[in-house]
Formats: sequence, C-alpha cells, structure tokens
Amino acid sequence: MIIDAGHWLIEVRRHRPLVHNMTNLVVANVVANALLAIGASPVMAYAHEEVQDMARIAGALALNMGTLTPDLITGMLLAGKAAEEARVPVVFDPVGVGATPYRVQAADKVATQLRLTVLKGNAGEIGGMAGAGGTVSGVDAAAVASGLAGAMVQYARHHHNVVVATGEQDFVTDGQTLWILNNGHPWLARITGSGCMLTGIIGAFLAVADKQREAIPFAEACAAAITCFNVAAEKAAEGAQGPGTFAARLFDALNLLDPDEVNRMARVECRQV
Amino acid sequence: MIIDAGHWLIEVRRHRPLVHNMTNLVVANVVANALLAIGASPVMAYAHEEVQDMARIAGALALNMGTLTPDLITGMLLAGKAAEEARVPVVFDPVGVGATPYRVQAADKVATQLRLTVLKGNAGEIGGMAGAGGTVSGVDAAAVASGLAGAMVQYARHHHNVVVATGEQDFVTDGQTLWILNNGHPWLARITGSGCMLTGIIGAFLAVADKQREAIPFAEACAAAITCFNVAAEKAAEGAQGPGTFAARLFDALNLLDPDEVNRMARVECRQV
Amino acid sequence: MIIDAGHWLIEVRRHRPLVHNMTNLVVANVVANALLAIGASPVMAYAHEEVQDMARIAGALALNMGTLTPDLITGMLLAGKAAEEARVPVVFDPVGVGATPYRVQAADKVATQLRLTVLKGNAGEIGGMAGAGGTVSGVDAAAVASGLAGAMVQYARHHHNVVVATGEQDFVTDGQTLWILNNGHPWLARITGSGCMLTGIIGAFLAVADKQREAIPFAEACAAAITCFNVAAEKAAEGAQGPGTFAARLFDALNLLDPDEVNRMARVECRQV
Repeated sequence: MIIDAGHWLIEVRRHRPLVHNMTNLVVANVVANALLAIGASPVMAYAHEEVQDMARIAGALALNMGTLTPDLITGMLLAGKAAEEARVPVVFDPVGVGATPYRVQAADKVATQLRLTVLKGNAGEIGGMAGAGGTVSGVDAAAVASGLAGAMVQYARHHHNVVVATGEQDFVTDGQTLWILNNGHPWLARITGSGCMLTGIIGAFLAVADKQREAIPFAEACAAAITCFNVAAEKAAEGAQGPGTFAARLFDALNLLDPDEVNRMARVECRQV
Repeated sequence: MIIDAGHWLIEVRRHRPLVHNMTNLVVANVVANALLAIGASPVMAYAHEEVQDMARIAGALALNMGTLTPDLITGMLLAGKAAEEARVPVVFDPVGVGATPYRVQAADKVATQLRLTVLKGNAGEIGGMAGAGGTVSGVDAAAVASGLAGAMVQYARHHHNVVVATGEQDFVTDGQTLWILNNGHPWLARITGSGCMLTGIIGAFLAVADKQREAIPFAEACAAAITCFNVAAEKAAEGAQGPGTFAARLFDALNLLDPDEVNRMARVECRQV
Repeated sequence: MIIDAGHWLIEVRRHRPLVHNMTNLVVANVVANALLAIGASPVMAYAHEEVQDMARIAGALALNMGTLTPDLITGMLLAGKAAEEARVPVVFDPVGVGATPYRVQAADKVATQLRLTVLKGNAGEIGGMAGAGGTVSGVDAAAVASGLAGAMVQYARHHHNVVVATGEQDFVTDGQTLWILNNGHPWLARITGSGCMLTGIIGAFLAVADKQREAIPFAEACAAAITCFNVAAEKAAEGAQGPGTFAARLFDALNLLDPDEVNRMARVECRQV
C-alpha cells in the first residue's frame, strides 16, 4: 500500500476541520454537502470585511475562481495572505483558466501573489498554468500525460508547492514524487461541481496534514483526498441510473466511506521523479 | 395536543404565501425547493432597486446572512423597513454570528435597526445574540439549554418578538410561553441548508398567522413550522441511505406531509414562563 | 411527425455546444447539470471583464434575470452585443417580470437594446412583455391561450424573433408558425429552476440550428428543446415519489433520453398563422 488513504479519512473525521471555501455560485451547495458528508466542516465567506478573520480560524482555505469577479479575486488575495501568515494551507483551483484572457490574468495574479500550498485543476487548466500547453485534443493521451506530468514537476519544484491535475488519471506531485491515481467514474464528468467538491475535500485533508513536516504530507494529503473521493464515486455509481441519482448517492457514499475499503479499492502508483 | 401543527400546514397549502427570501448563495436552491415542496411560493430578490417592492407584496420576509456582504445587509435593511411598514412579518437568521467580528456587527445592525418578528438561529448563534454566551462545548447540555432558554425569554420580552433556537431540541418563545420541540433527525446536521430551509418555512407559516392577534400566533407559527419540518425529516430518513438520498427525500416528504400524521408524530412540550 | 425532436437531440449530443449562461444564483447548479445531462457543455460567467470573450466563443448565450442586479443587466448587455456581432444566438428569460417595476424596466432594457433570438418565459411573463396582460386568474384558459398566442405572434413579427411561452401547454412562434406543445409533468412546477433549465437547454438547441436559414430553424429548435425536456420530465416522474426524487431522476432521464422515444412520445401541434 503506497498511501494509507483510509487513515487520512479517519483523521479528517476525527478532527472535523473547518474549511473556508471561496468557491463559485454554481457549486457552493454541493461543495458544502461533500465536505459535510465526508466529515469536515465547511464555511463559505466572501466579504472583504471578514475573509481574513475566517481564513485565520480555518484549517484550510479553498479558492475556486469558477464565477470570478474583480471583487472575488481581491477577496481571495486578502484571505490567502491571512492564511499564509497563520500557516493555514491554501488550495487554488483556477477553473476555466484559458477560456478568456481575464481568467488567465486572474489566475496568474492569485498564483503569483499568494504562496499556494496546492495548485489544483483539470489537465487542461494545469497544462495552461504549468506551461504544458492548454489544448490536448487529437494528441496521444499518454504523451500528453507525460508532457503534463513533466511540466507539473517543474512547476512544483519552482514554486515549492504541490500540483494536482485531474482527469481519467489524476496526477499529484511535489516535485520529488509523482502519484498517479486511477480511481474514479465517468459520471463525475457529467455532474457540475465534481472537481470543485474535490478542491474542498483536498482542503479538508490538507488541514489534517502534519504541519511540522514540509512538502511531503501535503502531496500525500492530496493523493489521499483524491483516492477517497474517487472511490466514493465508484461506490455511488453502483445502482445509480444516471447523473442525477449518482449525485445524490455520491453524498451517501462519502458519508458511508469505509477506510479499509478505500485502501482495498485504491489504485495508486507512485514514482520518484 | 398543544399545537395543531397539521392545521397550520393546511393553511399554508391553502394560501400558498409568497415568501421573499434574501438568503445565502449556498442554499438558495434548497430553500426555494423546500418552500415549493411544502406548498408555499418562494421568491428571491436582492437588488436594492426592488427589495422594498418585493417585501411589500410578500406574505413574509426571510433574511439569512450566511454569505453576507455590505450590499446584502443594506438590502436587508431596505427590505425589512418596507416589510415593517406594510405589516409583513420578518424572520432573521444570523448565520454564523460569532465566527467573525464582522458577522457580529452585521447581525447587531439588522437586529437593532429592524423590528424583527422572529430571531431564529441555532443554539450557538442565539446564545451569542441573546447573551447566553456562544460556547457550549463541555458544559452539561441540560444546563446550557436552561441557560439558553432563560436568555431567550429575556430577549423576547425586551424586544417584543419571538426567539427560536434550533438544535437536538428546538426552543421557541415569545417571552410568555416556551415551546420545547423534540422532533427531527441527525441527518439534518449532515446536509447544508437545513437550518436555512427552516427559516424560509417559518416565513411561510408566519405569513398565514392571524395578524390581528399579537405575539402569540407568531410563536405558535414557529413551533408549527419547526414541527412540520422535523417530522418531514423523520419521514425522509426512512429508507434513505445517507445524506444525499435523505436530502432528495426531504422534498418528497415535505410535499407528501400529512396533517394528521404531523399531529400524531409531534413531540411538543409547552411551559408558561 | 411535425418536428423531428429526436434528431435535434442527436445533433446536440454530437456537437456538445458550449452554452454561456448568465443565470440566477438560485438555479445555476441545476441549469449546469441539465445541460451536462442532455449532452451540452455549460459555462457560467458574469464578470464584465470577460463576458464578451465568453459569449463570442459560445454556441449560444442564455440570459436569465431571476436574481437581477444593475451589474448583471450591464453584463448581459455587454455579452448580448458581443454575441450579436459574432452571430451567436441569444435567448432571454425575463424571470418574474411584472413582480416589481424594476423588473419591468430591466426586461425592457434587455429586450430593446439587444436583438434577441428568442424571448422565453412563462405565460404570465410573456403576456406581460408581449402586451397580452399579465394576469390570467379567473379567465377562461382557452381564451387566455388564444389571446396570449395572438400577442406572441404580433411580438415575433414586430421583433423578427422567436417567442416562447411555457405553461400546461407551451407555445412557440416565429410569427408565421405556431407550435403548441403538450408534453410535460405537473412536478416541473414543484421544483425550482425547471423553467431556467429549459432556457439553458433551448440555448443548446439554438447552438446547433443551421444559421444559414433565418427564423425557421430557431423556432423549430425551441419546439424540439421543449419537447425533449418535457418528455424527460414525463420519464422522470415514473417511479418518483415526490419533487425531490423527481429532480434527481430528471437528470437521469435527460441523460438517458432516447431520440426515437422522444419522437414517439412527442405531442406537438403546428399551425400556420
């Protein structure tokens, strides 16, 4: 067993970490429900007047720019600086970066002005941010993955953080180790907010990472979070009849998730890079 | 039978009251669905340009500061003043008050500048607002409840309104009578927005309260609303496999809720104080 | 068979059109899920800094003023002008128009400053916009429908666009042809966002309309979109126990929707006017 994802799950449920989410208005509800279901404690707060206070008392700060505005970006920077000072880990999900010039600027601003613990997105988004090129269609998947993983490793080394790219396979790296995660279900791509839920859940796992050790546990926390979430998706798909019943059952599965079963079902590869 | 909650439910379904909700972006969808399911008519409106007009034509105004901003608070004050002038009842839910100084200020502003019909929150929030102290962990539950209920009674007498505190037991008081409500289900705490749905539903019940009589029917409306909602939760939990299927079934249960069954299942205590 | 709705569905699934939604915060989640379920690709973007860029790359722009603000209306005008220049079809849903003077002003502003491809609302909203009078209670339904349909035809001729009014029967007209659509289920009125989901789905169908031909295919696209959505609702209602399980099953049904079955179940009338 490469990572003990089940143990991470137990720790999340034991600590019930408070995750401060600044997420988009499309998915705020499902992000909160996913965090509640897995055993964490979500809070959503956006006002510039309070985001610093909220970030300081949180176990982690999860930033998601899905429905970004200038006000939201300013709020994220305020919250992120406060989190940094209070040694609260920060995960940033640059949703839709590359779709418009404004998204590119906004994501760059957040990624350069904050010291992110984790940069997390789908393969296209992370490829865009890490310089592997944003467009993947028509290219051999293995080559893309290889190119993507290489760019992620460089980015993680340069920024001293963890980089996560999701897709059919999920990649996590801290610049030294590369995790390749093979759980999940195609229906995750047929419901809105699956990636955003995972960003929140990564926040919960970061919150229980041992802050004494440096980069390693944060990357492991990400790999464990992704594995738990994706195993829950596999469980939820059993007996679901489509994306609607799958979405409802996903919260059930997160709630019922058994640590031992997570470890039995986990399909994780790990390479030193 | 101390209150005829089933009769209140019938009245809500008969009048289909329009409830103007200014609620948070995490739960707006489920609040609207809960109101539709129980037989009321929800509307969400936030623009300063229209909140006064909307509040005047509504049967009740339900204010929830979950994802508060300065703009939202200003809008709530505009809507609340208009509601007051039009004798439209107002329920205020100071979500998360105490978590940050800004939330304390904002809740105080709303509670002092508006004549609230009902102040409603969970035990920690109401304890904070009513002066019973916001922290409850490690203290004997009965003593806390007793301290909380006492503070609620004082607050209600001072402000001539109704105070509601939810939790394992729910308390409602108008300063003369104290209702102790014992229905509900633990899964309500595992989905986001259950408290916010209840705030909206309290609005619907306030809207059908006889406005000729003073404080009494509003408190009774709250006790009836809570009982109906919590009995629906008990029904929804039957056959649910977790918080996801429970949430879907909660709307079914609100829709199917039988007035006679509500009264049979109601576990209500009532004391003169 | 008057329209081949099943063929339209196949085209949507084949092209997976990107629909740029500027919708209200109550329903954004379910609109995104409905579009994903039927096979389209939703994006929500609101910032003035990016709405023009997003509208230009989208297959359609869907505007919904449910929780309108001055900022949102300004953003809609920016996006709508950009869409017009790029020949991207635009559907506008004036949610709640008539409820407040501000909504009337805002809807008029959008409808006069943009060249809308489709104006879509419920019977009361479209009656208000098209001049048939907004109040329908106590009036003979057939007469209202007749009056409504007449007003819609005049509006469509005057504005050279398509007008859609939903209700127990749904009406679509481009000023020459009137479609009367008879599918659907009463539970659609018991969940929030069913009309808003349909607005998004109409966007997806507009995106695959042949832009070479003028008004005709857009009206047909609307009739096909409504028929597909309403047949899915009929399927979803089978086995549902109330609005909550119905809502979950609606996404399943949109996902599973069979083109041949849509055509078999379609109840469509068509008249030259």
